[in-house]
Amino acid sequence: MKTTIKDISNYTGLSITTVSLVLNNKPSKISEKTKKRVIAAAKKLNYSPNHLAVGLVTKCTQTLGLIVTDISNNFYGILAKGVERACQEKGWNVMLCNSLNSHERELDLIRVLKNKSVDGIIYCVGASVTRAKAKKSFDLLKSGNLPLVAIDNDFIGLARHNIYLDNKMGGYIATKYLIENGHSKIACITGPKGIDMKKGRIEGYMQALKEASIPYNSKLVIEGNYTIESGFSAIERLKNKDFSVVFAFNDMMAIGALKALKEMKIKVPDDISLMGYDDLPFCEVLEVPLTTIKQPVYEMGYTAAEKLIKLIQNEDEGNLDIMFEPTLMVRNSIKRIIK
Amino acid sequence: MKTTIKDISNYTGLSITTVSLVLNNKPSKISEKTKKRVIAAAKKLNYSPNHLAVGLVTKCTQTLGLIVTDISNNFYGILAKGVERACQEKGWNVMLCNSLNSHERELDLIRVLKNKSVDGIIYCVGASVTRAKAKKSFDLLKSGNLPLVAIDNDFIGLARHNIYLDNKMGGYIATKYLIENGHSKIACITGPKGIDMKKGRIEGYMQALKEASIPYNSKLVIEGNYTIESGFSAIERLKNKDFSVVFAFNDMMAIGALKALKEMKIKVPDDISLMGYDDLPFCEVLEVPLTTIKQPVYEMGYTAAEKLIKLIQNEDEGNLDIMFEPTLMVRNSIKRIIK
Repeated sequence: MKTTIKDISNYTGLSITTVSLVLNNKPSKISEKTKKRVIAAAKKLNYSPNHLAVGLVTKCTQTLGLIVTDISNNFYGILAKGVERACQEKGWNVMLCNSLNSHERELDLIRVLKNKSVDGIIYCVGASVTRAKAKKSFDLLKSGNLPLVAIDNDFIGLARHNIYLDNKMGGYIATKYLIENGHSKIACITGPKGIDMKKGRIEGYMQALKEASIPYNSKLVIEGNYTIESGFSAIERLKNKDFSVVFAFNDMMAIGALKALKEMKIKVPDDISLMGYDDLPFCEVLEVPLTTIKQPVYEMGYTAAEKLIKLIQNEDEGNLDIMFEPTLMVRNSIKRIIK
Repeated sequence: MKTTIKDISNYTGLSITTVSLVLNNKPSKISEKTKKRVIAAAKKLNYSPNHLAVGLVTKCTQTLGLIVTDISNNFYGILAKGVERACQEKGWNVMLCNSLNSHERELDLIRVLKNKSVDGIIYCVGASVTRAKAKKSFDLLKSGNLPLVAIDNDFIGLARHNIYLDNKMGGYIATKYLIENGHSKIACITGPKGIDMKKGRIEGYMQALKEASIPYNSKLVIEGNYTIESGFSAIERLKNKDFSVVFAFNDMMAIGALKALKEMKIKVPDDISLMGYDDLPFCEVLEVPLTTIKQPVYEMGYTAAEKLIKLIQNEDEGNLDIMFEPTLMVRNSIKRIIK
């Protein structure tokens, strides 16, 4: 059980107001003796040390923490910009942290942000984090009673407040579009396997195949990690397999795939078609303008920050799952196969 | 004058060690009475409140602050990743802040990072910041005696430690290559004008023109702000002017220019050639693979973090200007004009 100001009030017999004034170092006429009693009690009851800030102004710092996986993926850059803009409009600041896809680092960053007294955290679960590991992160986040919004999180039930895209729908409409264009041998490059992150996309893919009575072929499903490099190497692994289109689960991997296909002198879409996911700004001016699934990523970041600030200010206490809808962006990277 | 631990030692007659132990809340056998004397003196002498952390562990937090302009520009995403990676290898963390090109916000972020007790700061001056404003930022940074490395900063003399690209050389080799390919009407899209930020690029451009006896035409020099949108609108402003090539001072603006030219049904490079700057990962798979100037941006971020940590750990006290070299990346966006 975490010690609260009320516990210290009960222990010392002082009012909650007095305890709060001392622990938050607010101006008051409280005697030094009483202050010492409060601090001693707080220490004795293991009151969280970063609130024990005598001499320090510890009021709301109007600062949010934002944890993302890989800031060199333009998806997160745009997401972060949405968060920043919402904060800027309200006079808030953002501390952005980058987990580099390491769960250990994620835990470190959560601790650092808590120690740095941010007022709330927006958290993107890392791409290679399992449900058990994600639970560990959420538990650590919750242990500080820090307001929290999870973003782009596929682990249902771990966070109370979630901002996310309907990824199952995204995977479904992408695959359905490919099938409608005559494709049945549909390779895909997923995120890290063996975990259920982004499983929505693969579920949508499988549902569309099922509806069209196309059997699922696990050999055509290649594991990536959302980087350009992993898209590149996925194509090398698909080399001798039979497929007419590659569905990359994000645009960065689609770029990697495009680079690899180009090196092999395989033409997109004449020889192989290519579908992306995200709709990053460069998609429409790629060598082959990329057909992809649009995520309103800037809006998702903006909304997450707006809602988190409301949570911190106690203006929004209800459950807060906000789902955004994916949109198919048809460009020129899918060939129509006439049978 | 900033109050130091020595001042408090002189004022109280206590040793520097005692004062330091109390103010940093280190375990010790110092009596509560002495502790109170130190804290009272620190308050009286206006000792910086964020060091006045009784009950708080204030040792080196192994955390760097990184301030960039616009994280949705992939250049900064890759730079940040380089910083993160160097920190990760040494067990450090990074707080990334995004100024959104606002100087006011930049000042806010510097204050926030100082209050959050980062151990050092890597600072990219915003694209629309004048020298006078940049000086204000650097003065604020220096006032905390916080170790500081400036990155991608064209204001010579403001910071003691700088990591930067030879931008004059970059502008020069790009323009020289265009001239060698028969171009003499060379439009360019710069960063914000009226300030000397990134002036290296325009200086290099002008020097190459001069060496080739091509008069400088200010009407062909359009102001942008390093975003895709500003590249797009620059092309609209160049509409009725006479030029054969556009030199965009970063790849994001080159993408914007490419989008605008495409909308106008102007073919690159057949009708108009296009030169970028940065060599972001998507350049080689653009509709027209982009000829551009490569900045080793990941390495620059990595080096900045590595050096800043050394500075913090007093392992590197010397001047630390590290200049990186630009490289011309020839692809297919420049047409050779035969006269």
